[in-house]
Amino acid sequence: MASIKPSVPKGTRDFSPAEMAKRNFIFDTIKGVFRKYGYQQIETPSMENLSTLTGKYGDEGDKLIFKILNSGDFLAKADGNALETRNSNQATTSISEKALRYDLTVPFARYVVQHQNEITFPFKRFQVQPVWRADRPQKGRYREFYQCDADVVGSASLLNEAEFIMIYDEALSLLGLKDFTIKINNRKILSGIAQIIDKSDNIIDLTVAIDKLDKIGMEGVVKELIEKGFTDADVNQLQPVILLQGSNEEKLASLRKALNNSAIGLQGCDEIQTVFNYLASCKLQTATLELDITLARGLNYYTGAIFEVKTNEAAMGSIGGGGRYDDLTSMFGLKGLTGAGISFGADRIYDVMEELNLFPASAEQSTRVLICCFEPEAEMVALPLLQQLRAHNINSELYPAGAKIKKQLDYANAKKVPYTVVIGSDEIQSGLLTVKNMETGDQEKLTADAILQKLI
Amino acid sequence: MASIKPSVPKGTRDFSPAEMAKRNFIFDTIKGVFRKYGYQQIETPSMENLSTLTGKYGDEGDKLIFKILNSGDFLAKADGNALETRNSNQATTSISEKALRYDLTVPFARYVVQHQNEITFPFKRFQVQPVWRADRPQKGRYREFYQCDADVVGSASLLNEAEFIMIYDEALSLLGLKDFTIKINNRKILSGIAQIIDKSDNIIDLTVAIDKLDKIGMEGVVKELIEKGFTDADVNQLQPVILLQGSNEEKLASLRKALNNSAIGLQGCDEIQTVFNYLASCKLQTATLELDITLARGLNYYTGAIFEVKTNEAAMGSIGGGGRYDDLTSMFGLKGLTGAGISFGADRIYDVMEELNLFPASAEQSTRVLICCFEPEAEMVALPLLQQLRAHNINSELYPAGAKIKKQLDYANAKKVPYTVVIGSDEIQSGLLTVKNMETGDQEKLTADAILQKLI
Repeated sequence: MASIKPSVPKGTRDFSPAEMAKRNFIFDTIKGVFRKYGYQQIETPSMENLSTLTGKYGDEGDKLIFKILNSGDFLAKADGNALETRNSNQATTSISEKALRYDLTVPFARYVVQHQNEITFPFKRFQVQPVWRADRPQKGRYREFYQCDADVVGSASLLNEAEFIMIYDEALSLLGLKDFTIKINNRKILSGIAQIIDKSDNIIDLTVAIDKLDKIGMEGVVKELIEKGFTDADVNQLQPVILLQGSNEEKLASLRKALNNSAIGLQGCDEIQTVFNYLASCKLQTATLELDITLARGLNYYTGAIFEVKTNEAAMGSIGGGGRYDDLTSMFGLKGLTGAGISFGADRIYDVMEELNLFPASAEQSTRVLICCFEPEAEMVALPLLQQLRAHNINSELYPAGAKIKKQLDYANAKKVPYTVVIGSDEIQSGLLTVKNMETGDQEKLTADAILQKLI
Repeated sequence: MASIKPSVPKGTRDFSPAEMAKRNFIFDTIKGVFRKYGYQQIETPSMENLSTLTGKYGDEGDKLIFKILNSGDFLAKADGNALETRNSNQATTSISEKALRYDLTVPFARYVVQHQNEITFPFKRFQVQPVWRADRPQKGRYREFYQCDADVVGSASLLNEAEFIMIYDEALSLLGLKDFTIKINNRKILSGIAQIIDKSDNIIDLTVAIDKLDKIGMEGVVKELIEKGFTDADVNQLQPVILLQGSNEEKLASLRKALNNSAIGLQGCDEIQTVFNYLASCKLQTATLELDITLARGLNYYTGAIFEVKTNEAAMGSIGGGGRYDDLTSMFGLKGLTGAGISFGADRIYDVMEELNLFPASAEQSTRVLICCFEPEAEMVALPLLQQLRAHNINSELYPAGAKIKKQLDYANAKKVPYTVVIGSDEIQSGLLTVKNMETGDQEKLTADAILQKLI
């Protein structure tokens, strides 16, 4: 076999033990909160039928789906004309029937429709699995990354929206974040704003412009609106809405006035008010909740609430988002099933936690005790202690005899093992083993029983 | 969008909440034991460079690797001659540079070589990730399935082999298996057996025949050996070795006599003896340990110990296996790094546990309390209790008001929720909420505080 310089494909990553420990800390925390709120885990296959995925992510998305080459003699069934004309697009479906999932949402919709008769609705599911996108890799953008989603289908209650906010608050608080904002908006408010200036057909242009308020200021927004064909009168009417000030309650009151002539706009206000009412009796731990009518993500599928979460402690884009969609499963023929969902941006949360040094030391500790032997005979003294430690659920290792003690202690340090027990001929004779606190350097001589008592 | 009848690709599976809960029970148990023994988790990308995988699994294996079609205009760089002659094999590498991992072992070898300067050896890693094989799907054989491996590289100590046996014993005991056998053999013993009849070159024929003893009996084995060119004298010399009887110690003693003229054979016996010596001071909980010289799995890569685990409670093939390999990383240019590893067959363990009804009820329980409301006003009474329950880490849900109580209780039953709290106008007025044990049907009226005290 030729020797190959080993590497991983562009945009993919290995995760070392230290990285895995931190990633598990994030995922376990979020999963625990999902479960606490009644969400249950499912998994779907990594590969879906290509036809399940095609057409769900727009033309650009379709190109970014990783296709799997049919097994066996795939050219036998290939589109000859496409091959001859080197038409890759046309050839694809004749040599590829399967593809890697691009997100967790479409597979979830497929799951709900396929298993609708086994599911008790409302169905609250969470899913934490990798997805694949043939995007150009860059800092923070990978071709394989985990998504971390919770969705409920079959319940129109706004209690779900309120609970999503509580889930964000609880999970991010548990992860140690101390200052973050959960922004909420409602598609119906955006529809209302378009309606009052009689520009419902231009809602995308309108919301794209408003969404830039943070970056380009009101002046820039006005410029863009005018360019897109909005009139001065439109802009004058929009200005107070876009520049809403005050508390969430004050903003809502102003909005109600401005949207007084839009039934759908007022409905959006009512929905936001209902969510706030639910939250009034459930104090948030850390999050700042902010009604932000410039928030317009996912406008092509969200029909009600829209969420976005940002940390205020580090320069970082959104670390979470979601919303309500009324028509998720209709792409697979099941109509009228309303749903809502949220997602955690695990990779970004990881980066924020690294930057702020939020991972607890315990997240990185795996082995708690390493027993080191000066000589092979010591192993037989070590083994009963080792088994006792493990019987008390203490992660423990015995370094196989034969290596120099320095190498064994280096191993302990590399693995961040907090305690070592050293056994040499003195220790075998006296029955007193040397136990060392690797952090302080303190060491003492104790019997195996005393060591056990000290460490359990 | 056209409506598509939704399905998953052949040989792949969705996992429902109930299935996931059971699968997590298995994986969490095994991972916990791996960690207790000092193994640390890594993850590698789902896709590897095709060149990393090709040539590692034999010609048959190469065909079963799922290849990923290059993104974009893949035909532009395609091998024109291969397309014109419809030569799929030849065309593959020109339109596919990446593939889905086929097992966890080759990616692990690649990982070790790629990261050798960051790793502290001995490196004890575990990995639980899906693998993909374009095998023909059949009962118990899937195109996507999880492997669950622990390996150590950079340590020749037989302590590792002893600990693998302890890991099997502890993990399978924790899962509730009550009667299983861990078989152990050593490649060097098999080499010794071939050597004493001077047929070292025919070791594969020899071990393939011996391996069938269980199925075809000694008579069948003899017949096959003669067919393969072994002499009557060979067979006479082999017979007592193949038909070893007695305890493990008795078998070892007989083997030592038979292999007296084979240095490598005696070394194999010494290694097995050393493993037994380690285990003598570490009582196994459940497993029967059996020296079985007919065990010959993975003979093309194992160089020392060979393991296989079988349950004796259900008709099922091997539920685990492994061994020592001296040359894993040389395929990527790093020589002289010895390693050993084991694998758990999670899908088979799942099937055994289902058959024997071994999953604890707690594995299937997710939500512990469901609060049901007769009317919307009750939600506001429910919310503070809900938050109190969750603050005490009790997984709890509030069913959104509006549905009939029967539907709400059906939901509780479908999710196997053990307690419901029902709130109607009576309860709102009196402050006494009805709490019901869903298993016994018992119900009582208690204040919210008393319910909390009862359930925490």
